[in-house]
Amino acid sequence: MIANPMNDFTSQHYETERLKYAKTIQQALDQTLTPAHLSGPGKAPEQLVNAMRHGALNGGKRLRPLLVMQAAKIFGIPQNLSLHAALSVELVHCYSLVHDDLPAMDDDDLRRGQPTVHKAYDEATAILAGDTLLAQAFALLADEQCHQDPQIRSSLVLELAKGAGAGGMAGGQALDLEGEKGGFSMNDISRMQDMKTGALITSSVRMGAILGGADQPQLAALTTYGQAAGRAFQLADDILDITASAEQMGKATGKDAARSKPTLVARIGLDAAKTHLGETIHKALSALLIFGAEADGLRATAIYFAERKN
Amino acid sequence: MIANPMNDFTSQHYETERLKYAKTIQQALDQTLTPAHLSGPGKAPEQLVNAMRHGALNGGKRLRPLLVMQAAKIFGIPQNLSLHAALSVELVHCYSLVHDDLPAMDDDDLRRGQPTVHKAYDEATAILAGDTLLAQAFALLADEQCHQDPQIRSSLVLELAKGAGAGGMAGGQALDLEGEKGGFSMNDISRMQDMKTGALITSSVRMGAILGGADQPQLAALTTYGQAAGRAFQLADDILDITASAEQMGKATGKDAARSKPTLVARIGLDAAKTHLGETIHKALSALLIFGAEADGLRATAIYFAERKN
Repeated sequence: MIANPMNDFTSQHYETERLKYAKTIQQALDQTLTPAHLSGPGKAPEQLVNAMRHGALNGGKRLRPLLVMQAAKIFGIPQNLSLHAALSVELVHCYSLVHDDLPAMDDDDLRRGQPTVHKAYDEATAILAGDTLLAQAFALLADEQCHQDPQIRSSLVLELAKGAGAGGMAGGQALDLEGEKGGFSMNDISRMQDMKTGALITSSVRMGAILGGADQPQLAALTTYGQAAGRAFQLADDILDITASAEQMGKATGKDAARSKPTLVARIGLDAAKTHLGETIHKALSALLIFGAEADGLRATAIYFAERKN
Repeated sequence: MIANPMNDFTSQHYETERLKYAKTIQQALDQTLTPAHLSGPGKAPEQLVNAMRHGALNGGKRLRPLLVMQAAKIFGIPQNLSLHAALSVELVHCYSLVHDDLPAMDDDDLRRGQPTVHKAYDEATAILAGDTLLAQAFALLADEQCHQDPQIRSSLVLELAKGAGAGGMAGGQALDLEGEKGGFSMNDISRMQDMKTGALITSSVRMGAILGGADQPQLAALTTYGQAAGRAFQLADDILDITASAEQMGKATGKDAARSKPTLVARIGLDAAKTHLGETIHKALSALLIFGAEADGLRATAIYFAERKN
């Protein structure tokens, strides 16, 4: 018998938990992104560190680290032991936002209601801040404090590198830019979104599973969950881009249509997209049937992905 | 008794060896940078892969992978077992060139006589190609094929992430851009160059040592060698920027002065720089005194760094 995640979600409980996780991540990022912790052969330059902090500390929802921690929790891994992995996916997410916002990419001036990194600093600094956030993600995973077992540290690095790289998130961003030129089929759009948004979300869940020493059926189930959750997240994002105000979102909306970005919502319409979103959430929840109440966190997050208002 | 590296160097032997190593790296990069090997949850987009290949396969000297392999060879590690680590530092080097060449950074149109990646493709693709080369470097290190011992794989990831990151190479590039605005002391220039160029060269040598299971005194000696070799490499580069032709270098020369880039050569003059270069090579060679003939490769490379004509 599984718990009813809707109960958990509709109560205040989930929202309280989610914000508590987000605060933990925010505090840990604040501690990590300092010259003392960004160690290397030299001391990280102050302006670069400030730009990294600007890109990472401006109040994101921290949903990817939440997924790492919730997936790890299925296997009884406490929060302090999944923290490094959780931070690493957030650093990768933040690097991708800093680079995606650049003039040569999506050319965004605002992110979460604040100037984007290249606006607050300059383009060169934004490029380097993104690069160093990415490198730091791998430093965190390879550090002994991440996990005592080096096999697990290595597996986490491989998972994140693949999820972030040319066959994952960054490859999806390349396809997204290509798609603006037109000619994308429904399949092309799905592939692009599965890579651009889905890959890192799936990797987040899988990294929690790796931390927990999941067996193959468990890893497969969590991968299916991650893929469906990723699709749901993107669908909701595309729907909000049409239905929400810029104030609500903390960034410009209606931009997909203005840039002729290919989205499923643009192709199938708002109502069909909402139906599809419901089916996708169902798929995510079904994948978790092999788990008991220990997976309620992931269940509630899938539903949150679909129901969020910003 | 140590062998005389000059003999090795002035003979044709070293040059033949160096070119053989470079060919091995070139071939391995050619195989690695394909959609099949750039695996992830999705298939890497063709144009992005082509841009990555453009940035990585246009005939560099592959000196950093050479250092990895030569350092590993001290400990009897054969070339096939240091190949993944060697490739990873070259991918990081290539990513840094792709990003450094961008209009917002050094704004270079030519690299090794060919159009830079943003010229051959576009800026967005160049940013993503750099990002994905960086991610792929860590994927290579974390893969079981890199080394059977996950502790070594993790140590390699940590070393590379620190050498490449905010306290290493990318931090040095940030300082370099800062330095163009003026006001850099001799110490500031040294710090910048030690990070921008020295960090990755030092990490290359240290990664060879990690592969070889070096003990602390050996690692310390190789670190000192790497730092000195890195300084020598940069000094020689700054000297060549003044004395060599663009044709010889395959890129624009005289650019440091044109951009008011702070270099030691500009501060102390050509003759003093050449003397300093000699002292630095001496320091690199002295650090290797604890090793026998097995370190002759590294000795010859330090001398090559100083004597190269392009």
